[in-house]
Parts: sequence; structure tokens; C-alpha cells
Amino acid sequence: MDLDVCLIPQEITEERINNKTVVVIDVLRASTTILQAIENGCRSIIPTSSVSDAMEIAKQFDRDSILLCGEREGKKIIGFDLGNSPFEYTSDKVFGKTLIYTSTNGSKTILKFHNVKNVIISTFNNLEATASYVASLSNHILITCSGKLERFSLEDAVCAGYLVNVLKEKYHFHLGTDGAVAVSQMANQFVDTYQLLMNCSHGRFLMNIGMGYDLEICSKLNISKIVPEFIDGKIIKKVEVQT
Amino acid sequence: MDLDVCLIPQEITEERINNKTVVVIDVLRASTTILQAIENGCRSIIPTSSVSDAMEIAKQFDRDSILLCGEREGKKIIGFDLGNSPFEYTSDKVFGKTLIYTSTNGSKTILKFHNVKNVIISTFNNLEATASYVASLSNHILITCSGKLERFSLEDAVCAGYLVNVLKEKYHFHLGTDGAVAVSQMANQFVDTYQLLMNCSHGRFLMNIGMGYDLEICSKLNISKIVPEFIDGKIIKKVEVQT
Repeated sequence: MDLDVCLIPQEITEERINNKTVVVIDVLRASTTILQAIENGCRSIIPTSSVSDAMEIAKQFDRDSILLCGEREGKKIIGFDLGNSPFEYTSDKVFGKTLIYTSTNGSKTILKFHNVKNVIISTFNNLEATASYVASLSNHILITCSGKLERFSLEDAVCAGYLVNVLKEKYHFHLGTDGAVAVSQMANQFVDTYQLLMNCSHGRFLMNIGMGYDLEICSKLNISKIVPEFIDGKIIKKVEVQT
Repeated sequence: MDLDVCLIPQEITEERINNKTVVVIDVLRASTTILQAIENGCRSIIPTSSVSDAMEIAKQFDRDSILLCGEREGKKIIGFDLGNSPFEYTSDKVFGKTLIYTSTNGSKTILKFHNVKNVIISTFNNLEATASYVASLSNHILITCSGKLERFSLEDAVCAGYLVNVLKEKYHFHLGTDGAVAVSQMANQFVDTYQLLMNCSHGRFLMNIGMGYDLEICSKLNISKIVPEFIDGKIIKKVEVQT
């Protein structure tokens, strides 16, 4: 089985997606926040690419059954219930709710794959669980880094590299493209994921806007066994892997 | 002074170019071939984005004063004088001639910077000379990898990383973005540039179409002291650095 990696979403083409399992990574913070929400029992998460789309979709639900969630420029959107910090997504807030979620990068990347059968959301927190699940699908894999505002993000590439290295070493996947080789090598250079997040561009941005407290949880390896999957427009808890 | 790196041309924005010295890298093979042509005394090189543009520009010259040069799918374009192998650009062919040149990736990347004051063409062959020249301009730098068909190319990123590391260590430039940090780390992982070119996707493609003999010269470090520069639509020999 082959592994391919898109370093930024602009690299995605129909040809590269074709018949692959897709993994979307947005370490800061969409992947981490989505995983946290699902860990804490939300019903599902509907990603949208714009605030107006989120408002429109919200009209289809009882207001009590949903939460409007997401950020622009890192901060909670005015009138929304929750921002994009994983710490906001506690079980007392999200349990049983449908989350309508829009972020600057991650939710847009996920939506690019609306026609794909298996679209997995991954981050440092659930790497081993992701690897176990995607390996069980016996399919070629395309990992896509979300980046930041159409620019390369180091933390997404390194996280992709960690996942590539688990898939290579434990499940014997083949590094099929230059992107896969590059992130694999990058992962070997950054062994301290918390230091990585404090030094990368997006991490420094979050610290500058007073949200540096999010970096530690986003950096933690394998604290979750849950694999979120994007199916029919919704992200749900697909499996809880027994690793 | 700050260093920024675009890993693929789709990352280029007006904001990132603004007031910077630009360095374009396309190791396989545009940068290497352009440098070879200039080493061997061509008058100038006019990059074009399409075969039809090349034919149109050719009409403005005496046929004897020009050469039509370039490739599609790695091979010489039908009716053209030269393909894209550095070995074709000998002094008996190119001396004193104006070369009209179109390649799949490199020439298109160069043309994106037609409004920029200083646009340098660099490759493994002239890294030290490039570093010396661009440092003398006392300006922030954007290095752009050309990639292959809008996909990330490992060899361009590693070459960018070699250049970044010289600029950092010898001329005290600051790695200003995630892209600069990533390629710097990649360069540390690939110490054998010939092995790199034999293993990367584009190198394997060239071997498959019988052009693997180009890889060795493309891999050689600092065999040239010339710095080609793109000025007013033409690439010329800007300086011959005394390193």
C-alpha cells in the first residue's frame, strides 16, 4: 500500500484523491478540537467553509440541539457559542449536541473531500489510533496538511510525518511520493512536539493572541483512541481503537 | 535580514514577494540548464510559459541569432533546436545566441516574478555564488521551489535548504517562516545530493525516459561561480562571484 502526502491543500488534485483513504491534519487547532468534541460526546460536527454557511445550516435545527462553533483570526466568531480552543469543548457543553463548525483552515480542507469514502481527522493526539484504523481499510492513503491561509505549516507536516512513520514501520506502507519522504524526514528532526508548537509560526501567533495555553494539549501524543470520520457531510466518532 | 521559502509555486503571493530578492530553484533541470547555457556564453535566455509564446517571440529575431529550447514531458519539443539536458548547451551551440526557452515548471515559475527587481536562478551548481550575491543586496529573500506540475519536489526543497543553511551560517540570515525552517532541516537529512536525485520522483522519471545521465551534473555542488539573473524579461549573467 502506498502513502502520499500533500504539504498544503493547493496540492490536492482529483487524481491524487482517486480511490484513496484520506487523512486530514490541522494540529492547530481544528483536528485537536474536533477530536476533543467527539471525545466529550457531541452527536456530530458539521464543518462549513464560511460563517454564513454555518448560520444557514443552523436554521435547519432546533437552536437548543446545536452549537455554533469556530474561529476567525484565531478568535471566537461574534454570536457563536464556542471558539476553537479544545478546552471549550467540555462534555457539559457538547454532550449530545450537533456542532456546526467553521475554522479558517481545517474545516475548509475537510470539505474538499466531500465525495471521498473514508476521510479521517487526525492529530498528534490520535496518531496510533488513526494508523491502526486506516491500515485496517487496506487502501492507499493520502494525508493532507491543512496549512495556514494557503501557506505551509510546519506542525501539520511534522504530524503527517509522525503518522507516515507509524504506517511505514508498523504497517509496512510504502512512501510513494516526495511529499511522504519529506515529512517522514521532518518528523525525525522534531522529537519534542511541544517545542515544535511553541516555535512554529501558527504556535507563535496563538501565543501572541493569548491562546498559548492550547499548545500543550495539541502537542500530546496518543492520548485518544478515537478516530473521527467525515461521512455524508458530518464528522462522527467512527471507531474507538483498542491499541 | 529574513529568509522565506515557498515549497511550491502555488504558495507565492504578492505579499510574500513584496520588496524581496527572489531566488528560483528548479534543480531538474531548468536552473541547471540555464546556468550551463550562461556558463557557455549564450547572449541571454528568454523564458516563456508556452510553446506558442516561444514561437511568437522567435519571429522578432533573425532565425540564425536564436535557438528554440525546452521540453515537454522531459523531451525536446518537436521542431525545437535544443531540449532540456544541460549537456546540449555546449559553447559551440549556444555562444552568442539568444535562447528562447520553455520548460514545464522552471520557466513558468521565473515568469511569475516579472515585476520583481532581483530574480536569481539557483541550483546545487552555484549555491555559494548565489549566497554571496544575494547577501550583497542587503534585502530580505524569498526562495521559491518550482516543484513538478504543481506538486512538491523533494530535490528543489533540499537545494533550497542548502542555500538557506549557507545564508544562515555564513551571512547570518534569519529563518523567518515555517517553510525556511522545514527546508533547512530537510537539507541536513540529505547529504548525498546524487543519491537524492536518483531517489526523488523527478529523478526516477528522468531515468525512466532515458535521461538519467543528467542527474550527476545536476547534483554537483558549487562547480560554477556564475549567478544568472532575470531582468526585463531576459535571463543574463549578472555576476561572476569571486568566492
